[in-house]
Amino acid sequence: MKQKTEELTVNARGQGLTEFTHEVNDVVSSSGISSVLCTVFISHTSASLVLQENADPSARRDLEDFLVRLVPENDPHYTHTLEGADDMPAHIKAALTSTSISIPVTNGRLALGTWQGIYLWEHREARSRRRIVVHVLGE
Amino acid sequence: MKQKTEELTVNARGQGLTEFTHEVNDVVSSSGISSVLCTVFISHTSASLVLQENADPSARRDLEDFLVRLVPENDPHYTHTLEGADDMPAHIKAALTSTSISIPVTNGRLALGTWQGIYLWEHREARSRRRIVVHVLGE
Amino acid sequence: MKQKTEELTVNARGQGLTEFTHEVNDVVSSSGISSVLCTVFISHTSASLVLQENADPSARRDLEDFLVRLVPENDPHYTHTLEGADDMPAHIKAALTSTSISIPVTNGRLALGTWQGIYLWEHREARSRRRIVVHVLGE
Repeated sequence: MKQKTEELTVNARGQGLTEFTHEVNDVVSSSGISSVLCTVFISHTSASLVLQENADPSARRDLEDFLVRLVPENDPHYTHTLEGADDMPAHIKAALTSTSISIPVTNGRLALGTWQGIYLWEHREARSRRRIVVHVLGE
Repeated sequence: MKQKTEELTVNARGQGLTEFTHEVNDVVSSSGISSVLCTVFISHTSASLVLQENADPSARRDLEDFLVRLVPENDPHYTHTLEGADDMPAHIKAALTSTSISIPVTNGRLALGTWQGIYLWEHREARSRRRIVVHVLGE
Repeated sequence: MKQKTEELTVNARGQGLTEFTHEVNDVVSSSGISSVLCTVFISHTSASLVLQENADPSARRDLEDFLVRLVPENDPHYTHTLEGADDMPAHIKAALTSTSISIPVTNGRLALGTWQGIYLWEHREARSRRRIVVHVLGE
């Protein structure tokens, strides 16, 4: 049984989804371990992870737009406002989505569906560099 | 340390929750590994996973109904509409719930609470066969 | 490769977030395993887990208040009402957040970001003792 941990930096260009399936695949391949559990973890509370359709970009835009309507900026109920109008909505959006996703790997391949990509979901408006930890454990 | 991966097919009869706790238990039992981490992963972006109350069916119906109200069909904001009125809401519902759930197993038993069942949450209207991967890693 | 499973009891004082990062760290430290995957799992369907900002309490209050507005009590659509006005909303809130979170550990340290704490998110109004299982697997 072997394991490997690698830290990725994924650059987001403002709010929305950025795919990094290839980077996760590279960590799995370079580990030399063919049958593993691969865990993807994001070390932030204002960005999150999602597995989503990688075919039609309109699905990802609609997804982003839905979340912006669900968790609006400048809601008068917010009290945590010192870090900008997009900060509190970003924390809420992160809490409603995922911080860690575990994906089985068989014969060196992630068990992703045909249309399933791994995405960073950035919830802040500024460009960001996000720290994502990929952990591979198996044999 | 040993591991086992098994692919399950769970049939959903349209939108709603279908329990498959027994099938996951069978994978754990047949692995012969008594102390493990069991990861359940769904290879789709329009269906998801949830651990939910397995006693009263009314709780599951209310859960399903809430999500249908939260993410309505035919919202004029959607642009990803070619695959049917239930397609974009299905992607959003999947993103708001879970794609992978990891459950510790001790003495051969999943650490589920008394009322906790493992459910496929189908978000499309048609009957579907969904691919779920169960990974067991331990000793 | 080694593993350890420990059951924690976290006491919640009604609805809201209760941090238990230290308790998880203690399980990791006492395992004597420096490089692991740490999985935190909650055995309930009316409380959940979230990694959230541990600096400013206003962020946690706003998060709790948002979820209370999103999933109101006494919605006339609910049919599962026998266990109290806060019961069905609690199940919905649990389904929209997380039941299990897996965090890589390197050099004995959880890969949490600087501002990331591990929280029990209680969705029932009464004080509760919640059962959380921490599983550590690595070498």
